[in-house]
Amino acid sequence: MAKHNYSAGPCVLPQGVFKQASEAVLNFNGIDLSILEISHRSKEFIEVMDKAQALVKEVLEVPAGYSVLFLQGGASLEFLMVPFNLMNNNGKAVYLETGAWAKKAYKEAAALGNAEVIASSADKNYNYIPKGYQIPSDVDYFHCTSNNTIYGTQIKDFPKTDALMVCDMSSDIFSKKVDISKFDLIYAGAQKNLGPAGATLVIVKDEILGKTDRKIPSMLDYQIHAKSDSMFNTPPVFSIYVSMLTLEWLKGLGGIEVMQKMNEDKAALLYNEIDSNPLFEGTAELEDRSLMNVTFLLTNEALKDEFDAMWNAANISGIKGHRSVGGYRASMYNALAKESVQALVDVMKELAAKHA
Amino acid sequence: MAKHNYSAGPCVLPQGVFKQASEAVLNFNGIDLSILEISHRSKEFIEVMDKAQALVKEVLEVPAGYSVLFLQGGASLEFLMVPFNLMNNNGKAVYLETGAWAKKAYKEAAALGNAEVIASSADKNYNYIPKGYQIPSDVDYFHCTSNNTIYGTQIKDFPKTDALMVCDMSSDIFSKKVDISKFDLIYAGAQKNLGPAGATLVIVKDEILGKTDRKIPSMLDYQIHAKSDSMFNTPPVFSIYVSMLTLEWLKGLGGIEVMQKMNEDKAALLYNEIDSNPLFEGTAELEDRSLMNVTFLLTNEALKDEFDAMWNAANISGIKGHRSVGGYRASMYNALAKESVQALVDVMKELAAKHA
Repeated sequence: MAKHNYSAGPCVLPQGVFKQASEAVLNFNGIDLSILEISHRSKEFIEVMDKAQALVKEVLEVPAGYSVLFLQGGASLEFLMVPFNLMNNNGKAVYLETGAWAKKAYKEAAALGNAEVIASSADKNYNYIPKGYQIPSDVDYFHCTSNNTIYGTQIKDFPKTDALMVCDMSSDIFSKKVDISKFDLIYAGAQKNLGPAGATLVIVKDEILGKTDRKIPSMLDYQIHAKSDSMFNTPPVFSIYVSMLTLEWLKGLGGIEVMQKMNEDKAALLYNEIDSNPLFEGTAELEDRSLMNVTFLLTNEALKDEFDAMWNAANISGIKGHRSVGGYRASMYNALAKESVQALVDVMKELAAKHA
Repeated sequence: MAKHNYSAGPCVLPQGVFKQASEAVLNFNGIDLSILEISHRSKEFIEVMDKAQALVKEVLEVPAGYSVLFLQGGASLEFLMVPFNLMNNNGKAVYLETGAWAKKAYKEAAALGNAEVIASSADKNYNYIPKGYQIPSDVDYFHCTSNNTIYGTQIKDFPKTDALMVCDMSSDIFSKKVDISKFDLIYAGAQKNLGPAGATLVIVKDEILGKTDRKIPSMLDYQIHAKSDSMFNTPPVFSIYVSMLTLEWLKGLGGIEVMQKMNEDKAALLYNEIDSNPLFEGTAELEDRSLMNVTFLLTNEALKDEFDAMWNAANISGIKGHRSVGGYRASMYNALAKESVQALVDVMKELAAKHA
């Protein structure tokens, strides 16, 4: 019996992708070689890289003038690459602090140059998205985090600004329609809606690069990676291959709009239960609730052991909340089936029935 | 029929490892989850990380006082991390230039601070290892590349020095016995003798860290990675898992000494053929020949098409030489079977017999 995998990331990917990936580890595309042993310069892998990039552009409707890169180091290395590439020596960047990862992004920039937090929801343990702040037009860039996995919040309306718009979309990219043209640089660790840990997706507007007066080390320079088509050094072959498979699956389902509808359905199912079941309460402000990560608490902590035993018995895994919020976190990335959400809702209903 | 895979990297890994990895992509250790969907914080993956680190220490006989890290970004990111961690603002590092990768390592350091090439074999297209140079004792560190995949050379005797000894062992680590205590920092991209592309192994003497006056960004700081047991950010889970499997295979074979003997046998078989067959000649100086990458030329270029057709027909792949050397390069990493070397030698003998 398959598990209902609510892991916050690395997380569930489509079952068909696991099957294809497993076969490719033994024999990739019938060439009698494993995907793990082929050269990244082989025509077979160049086709994978090209297709993965093309699918990103197609699925997200990336406009002309953007490069799609597959790098390494996760969002954490992007925290450093962003200021290296976009912040001038005497420049300034502003950051929206919506959680622990947003704060880490800010700290790396602040260690390199002049970065400021323009607004923060730290006062309420990041349970909302700050609004109404003004972004000065003379800053080098504005940085935000679209979805906050730990706190279950998500930006629904991005601020308007003349400054460069940089966004860490690690945990909600490919989950809903986004107007890419409103962003200058988007990055995302693969390990939520894209593929296995070890690859980082970057979508960058070409014209913003090469303008800083800062000296950029080669491996941190987006232009170097773009010019060498993400092959400046050996890329994470397998992670990119599995990402390509996941993008094929997403396209085959009907693309982003179909996916968004499925994610909205799943989220509605669980949020409705949280809001109607007296034994549970959500932790995030209603208007800022994430479609990807649903954070909630028991209203009666004495039921914890009973509830934990029940969802464990229902083959649900990975819903323990992050230590900084407590309670539960149901991460419902693209590949999590609605049946898995129903399984959790059923357990919640059963608990309520027992204690009615 | 299986291919004889001579790829220079990513390269052949043990067939049993492919089988285990393929199964884990479907169901890891019988937990009904794919290795690709488990959290890096799960007890299952922490066991993998711990075991991989322990096996590195056991197989290489790493002395106490060293940390074993699994990072991302390949050797190319290490080119930057090394000077960031070890070179003082007014310090100096010296580099041994034995090939294209050694030169790239030097360039990243020179862009950050005061780095100098102490000796180079560029005068003969890197077909030998420079010797007889003196390393000043007042430098922050000495950097060398133990094996040069493109040119088929390998350092047999490392220089003695009081300076910190840093070595890029990407293409020969785990291939032969090395006295780790003579090195202060060793790094290696996984994709030769260890695992799939996407992980980087670092072995660092703890006491050399934290001494630079340079401000180190978090993701480039070895101490931060060491303190968080290579989990400062999401590690490349699958690459580390496969690396663990490869290390188990190596230990099961009898360890490094058995492996070294096997590699010496394979190299002797091919070098003997090159030296005795009038149609072939090696490109590297005899005393500096690599056990891992054997570079050779046809003595009569007119036979190229015939030879290429013959080894292709024998199911041999990946022996085309790097463009900067030309001819052929047979990369014979740990997992390449002696039968594969024999298959190539048979083709070479057949060509000679036809043109006797």
